[in-house]
Amino acid sequence: MGGEGSFIAQAHRQAAGLDGRFELVCGAFSRDLQNNLRTGSHLGLAQSRCYSTWQLMLEAERALPAEQRMELLVIVTPNHLHAPVASEALAAGFHVFSEKPAALNLAELRALKNVLDTSAGLYGLAHTYLGYPMVWQAREMVRSGVIGAVRKVLVEYPQGWLSQDVAGQGNKQAEWRGQPALSGLGGCIGDIGTHAFSLAEFVADQAVTHLCATLGVHIEGRQLDDDAAMLFKMEQGASGVLIASQVCAGEENPLSIRVYGDKGGLEWRQEQPASLIHRALDQPLRILRSGTGQPWLCEAATQRMRLPAGHPEGYLEAMANLYGDFAKAIRSEVTGNTAPGVPGIEIGLRGMAFIETAIASHNSNAKWTPLECSV
Amino acid sequence: MGGEGSFIAQAHRQAAGLDGRFELVCGAFSRDLQNNLRTGSHLGLAQSRCYSTWQLMLEAERALPAEQRMELLVIVTPNHLHAPVASEALAAGFHVFSEKPAALNLAELRALKNVLDTSAGLYGLAHTYLGYPMVWQAREMVRSGVIGAVRKVLVEYPQGWLSQDVAGQGNKQAEWRGQPALSGLGGCIGDIGTHAFSLAEFVADQAVTHLCATLGVHIEGRQLDDDAAMLFKMEQGASGVLIASQVCAGEENPLSIRVYGDKGGLEWRQEQPASLIHRALDQPLRILRSGTGQPWLCEAATQRMRLPAGHPEGYLEAMANLYGDFAKAIRSEVTGNTAPGVPGIEIGLRGMAFIETAIASHNSNAKWTPLECSV
Amino acid sequence: MGGEGSFIAQAHRQAAGLDGRFELVCGAFSRDLQNNLRTGSHLGLAQSRCYSTWQLMLEAERALPAEQRMELLVIVTPNHLHAPVASEALAAGFHVFSEKPAALNLAELRALKNVLDTSAGLYGLAHTYLGYPMVWQAREMVRSGVIGAVRKVLVEYPQGWLSQDVAGQGNKQAEWRGQPALSGLGGCIGDIGTHAFSLAEFVADQAVTHLCATLGVHIEGRQLDDDAAMLFKMEQGASGVLIASQVCAGEENPLSIRVYGDKGGLEWRQEQPASLIHRALDQPLRILRSGTGQPWLCEAATQRMRLPAGHPEGYLEAMANLYGDFAKAIRSEVTGNTAPGVPGIEIGLRGMAFIETAIASHNSNAKWTPLECSV
Amino acid sequence: MGGEGSFIAQAHRQAAGLDGRFELVCGAFSRDLQNNLRTGSHLGLAQSRCYSTWQLMLEAERALPAEQRMELLVIVTPNHLHAPVASEALAAGFHVFSEKPAALNLAELRALKNVLDTSAGLYGLAHTYLGYPMVWQAREMVRSGVIGAVRKVLVEYPQGWLSQDVAGQGNKQAEWRGQPALSGLGGCIGDIGTHAFSLAEFVADQAVTHLCATLGVHIEGRQLDDDAAMLFKMEQGASGVLIASQVCAGEENPLSIRVYGDKGGLEWRQEQPASLIHRALDQPLRILRSGTGQPWLCEAATQRMRLPAGHPEGYLEAMANLYGDFAKAIRSEVTGNTAPGVPGIEIGLRGMAFIETAIASHNSNAKWTPLECSV
Repeated sequence: MGGEGSFIAQAHRQAAGLDGRFELVCGAFSRDLQNNLRTGSHLGLAQSRCYSTWQLMLEAERALPAEQRMELLVIVTPNHLHAPVASEALAAGFHVFSEKPAALNLAELRALKNVLDTSAGLYGLAHTYLGYPMVWQAREMVRSGVIGAVRKVLVEYPQGWLSQDVAGQGNKQAEWRGQPALSGLGGCIGDIGTHAFSLAEFVADQAVTHLCATLGVHIEGRQLDDDAAMLFKMEQGASGVLIASQVCAGEENPLSIRVYGDKGGLEWRQEQPASLIHRALDQPLRILRSGTGQPWLCEAATQRMRLPAGHPEGYLEAMANLYGDFAKAIRSEVTGNTAPGVPGIEIGLRGMAFIETAIASHNSNAKWTPLECSV
Repeated sequence: MGGEGSFIAQAHRQAAGLDGRFELVCGAFSRDLQNNLRTGSHLGLAQSRCYSTWQLMLEAERALPAEQRMELLVIVTPNHLHAPVASEALAAGFHVFSEKPAALNLAELRALKNVLDTSAGLYGLAHTYLGYPMVWQAREMVRSGVIGAVRKVLVEYPQGWLSQDVAGQGNKQAEWRGQPALSGLGGCIGDIGTHAFSLAEFVADQAVTHLCATLGVHIEGRQLDDDAAMLFKMEQGASGVLIASQVCAGEENPLSIRVYGDKGGLEWRQEQPASLIHRALDQPLRILRSGTGQPWLCEAATQRMRLPAGHPEGYLEAMANLYGDFAKAIRSEVTGNTAPGVPGIEIGLRGMAFIETAIASHNSNAKWTPLECSV
Repeated sequence: MGGEGSFIAQAHRQAAGLDGRFELVCGAFSRDLQNNLRTGSHLGLAQSRCYSTWQLMLEAERALPAEQRMELLVIVTPNHLHAPVASEALAAGFHVFSEKPAALNLAELRALKNVLDTSAGLYGLAHTYLGYPMVWQAREMVRSGVIGAVRKVLVEYPQGWLSQDVAGQGNKQAEWRGQPALSGLGGCIGDIGTHAFSLAEFVADQAVTHLCATLGVHIEGRQLDDDAAMLFKMEQGASGVLIASQVCAGEENPLSIRVYGDKGGLEWRQEQPASLIHRALDQPLRILRSGTGQPWLCEAATQRMRLPAGHPEGYLEAMANLYGDFAKAIRSEVTGNTAPGVPGIEIGLRGMAFIETAIASHNSNAKWTPLECSV
Repeated sequence: MGGEGSFIAQAHRQAAGLDGRFELVCGAFSRDLQNNLRTGSHLGLAQSRCYSTWQLMLEAERALPAEQRMELLVIVTPNHLHAPVASEALAAGFHVFSEKPAALNLAELRALKNVLDTSAGLYGLAHTYLGYPMVWQAREMVRSGVIGAVRKVLVEYPQGWLSQDVAGQGNKQAEWRGQPALSGLGGCIGDIGTHAFSLAEFVADQAVTHLCATLGVHIEGRQLDDDAAMLFKMEQGASGVLIASQVCAGEENPLSIRVYGDKGGLEWRQEQPASLIHRALDQPLRILRSGTGQPWLCEAATQRMRLPAGHPEGYLEAMANLYGDFAKAIRSEVTGNTAPGVPGIEIGLRGMAFIETAIASHNSNAKWTPLECSV
């Protein structure tokens, strides 16, 4: 586990703590020796298990008795390290929970998948938004035909935090995300476009087959896209629109999805995650609300809730759901690549194919570019 | 004036009555003689001024003394009559307020414009959404630089009323709108796509130059599109997305626009027309609320309001604003084609160019199709 | 009809025009001769029917042939004239539509009722909020038992416009409203408390029997209350809370009501009048939306709507509904005091009893003061 | 720590885990031996530290070396045990974090305070809603005069879960809460009325001095109130209304507060805890949104946030804030009764005085009952 001082590393520690099934036992927090020790000490770790590099950590932990050994490695580094660390850790026999993207590109990702296929470890990706209970409720309602055959999928993720040159002003998050070598080929399209894309495929329960994308860069000198919009087609005939942007000035984090079928529609907004709006042709609008103990909610949703309706649960709770599912899978000795309920390598592969296809489409004069994802 | 029993004809009468500057004095409500007289009588008209055809009406009214004569002809027929009636009426010396579209196609529209250019009458188009005060407020804030240089325009108009085969089930509105000969080339793209398009150009205060569109038809046998989505580029460098659909099952009439510049963004939603959300990079979110007497609202907005904040004004009030502006222009003997504040022939031309370009783009494999609108 | 330059007089003219069943034929707009003529001329009236006093108007109109004569007198003066004008007009054979309150006090109101009982005219009160369609929908759902036996009624009307000494700063509305001789015994309690009270009795469909009220004055020198809060009991066992205030700084006009029974609850908010929230114990939250053509809405609601869902209707449309009902009653020669659908003298009586009881309760050390309303 | 299977016990474990500063080391989860061991084992505890009674736990933990010993006792039992356990634990040298209420009545609470005053331990009460960041932001804005002198406080907490006889249907939460011997004198007034009361005093930053209350019982055989409403006065001249109910059928947990001063008003709603609405007389409505890194938020608020704006934080995060503050106080060896930032015994005392005064007021025919709270 890494990432001292980073928002996402803290979020992972808080989410895991909230879930309560994992305990932090070791870490490689910084290549700076003092920093590393200080961080570990602050987190209550023994000095001996605060490693100066992730390689040392893998080696040393592997040597420990099974009952003491690190069980799950959480990767919260910049993107370029995701695949190398994950591959080594899986090869060394650890389970891996990685921040997204799974790798810098499809080639690297396929190599990682090869390691995963031959290792005993489980692999999960922190597509946190897929941990929200009402996202599962929406997917279940699509699957069970409540809204009929899906026709339209409108998914968007407009942020505003890159409206100005924040990287040039010292924002660490923006800095490494702006460097292709650390971040990968996609800027906005990779950072948040993949969240929108995965949410669309997850809820609509079908794959995107074609994209028509345009990307934008709005700050002089910025190397990666900060804005994306695209039309898309899905395998069962639905069409859709995906908007992802980091220059929608003033927007916070309003990832949202609307799915319409021939009988009704669903709407979910991440900033108000407890509400799932259900419109139907033959009855008034309904709002299904998150909260335990409501018989009209599906089991997949209910088991991802902790509190009665009206007690807000949020982003950390969604991430904690991924931790909980990961722990249950490990403890019940699930076989295969993926912990049920936790986004796995396939979502990583499709996300990477999405990024590469969106860029290809942007660079093409043809309207439609197929999204192929042969593993 | 026509359209007995139609939603839009009633809306026009109510809006004009609300504004109070025009009085209904005559009409050609139906080709059925009895129906025509009955309607006129119900509306308090003298039998002598309930005409069986619009041609007779123009002729007879023209023969009346100026102070008795019809001043403004309101056209609320199906689309195919808009241009013929308007042309004749203008040629006969009347002012014309027409439901949109101005014509069935660009050729017909250009011919209408030629008549208009040589007539003394004013011509207005019932782009009602451009009568909302907070739309003017948004445009003014864009113009005055409050949100900086415009980068992104997201405009959408998702309805659900054509999710099923309502034309086949006897819905009159759907019936004629589904027939190209009566409705024109565009279905959804014409009926509501043009509203979204005009709103985008109006608020962002710049023209769309290129489209990349895809249209859809979702009911077997339906002849015109019921769904549209497109990417677009604007003349000053902004890019955008336009969504218009009539198969978003369960949606009512949530036309909305979001415009983002390098300093902030604006959001307006027609179903809650009193609120204009203003996000900025350097201050908390603000909601400007419609209502008289608020010094932070611009004059163009305030003069379109009747009531103090918290007393909802809606669709009819927006349309009444167009009637009010039309009346003021007539009474102050404005010259030129258009009554200030009322959408005019140019908006009709751009809307028609939009429809034709969207269809061309849909039928093209090229990503971008230029939107040209030489008059 | 009076009230040049006043917000409420304009609102009445706009609402009547929107409805379209009445035409303005005469008026007594100002005691200033020139002002009166100017206003009438601006409204398109003949000089001969712009009267310098309401007394002259009654006299002159009465002398006209029936088919030319004023049909309905609309009273939009300050409160102290409501009852005198109404009494004379009724006695002179006219129908009367009066701004609320019906009179300055209960004694005056009872006298007015005596006139009404012996006249042929109909009498209506502009309790505009009772013209909203979803208010009728709520009442119907209460009546038909959808939410079970009513237990709780929470009604509130917090405004902010008297937070400062606006009367002292020249606000005309605030000026006369602040003078007991012109306004009556109640300030806030009369001006808006009665709206909240009437809404509560109307929707809960039962009478308030006891109050426990406290009133407040928040500006030095202000003579009438600007703030009120009270507990209340209703005749069928429900209890409730009523809040009315004009010092809730920054609030616009958010009159709202929530009614809870043993099976569910309803919530309506005037600033978003198209939505009626229905909560139930055994199903997800529903939002019933205003708009024609929805079979789950009751007829009383639907007949008060003009437009399909998603086309906002507001305050003027609600008032126009009262005009429409008044016109229908006159033309169908309804007998009795009241036009069906239009709030009548009984609502005026209860409102006045409410004001007097609230003041008595405020001045009492006893917890509960009975609200009696023997006519 | 107790409370196997209970919602609130799990919430405490999750919140403490989220915060990450405390680790669960022991517990007395059930008087049933097997149940107790099973729970402890499930939570990863050594059998030796799963105690069959809280008395045994105190004794045994006290005997451990300081560095192993339990640091903070969390009391999540039914109400009647709160004070006895807290007193013993404090006397034994432990810090105590207790669910509210602090005791069954004022007498018991004063006795507890005596113990606290002579012990070295810190005492905190889980008034979780006071852990929300935007509640601190609101209080800070009141304190710094942003809304001027406070005039009105409207606080409400309408729930619906006791609309039916759920205790009779086997709901454990409802069962013990319905028994005065376990729950105390107040039903709804104690369970949630105190939350509303504490929030009002906290945000308005002044004490309530007088109440005029009415309580209700809506189910045959129910022993404690399920509904309360009251008017109140505050020490600096503000007046207010408090509504707390558990028979507002269909409501979830919408605790809310509105505070109005002579310059503006604030509104916060627990179900959307990230938004603080600020209305002012001289500018448009603003919504301050929770989220790190916003310079216009006060430090007290920002330090209670974990995530950037748009990443929802909720109820567990609010409770985790109390755990975090408690841990910081312990580790920095704060002296006195209370951990800064954690609601302490004074809030417990005022809450208990509130319950007793509300009941006295309900039973009185006098309008106003003073709320006195001499310790």
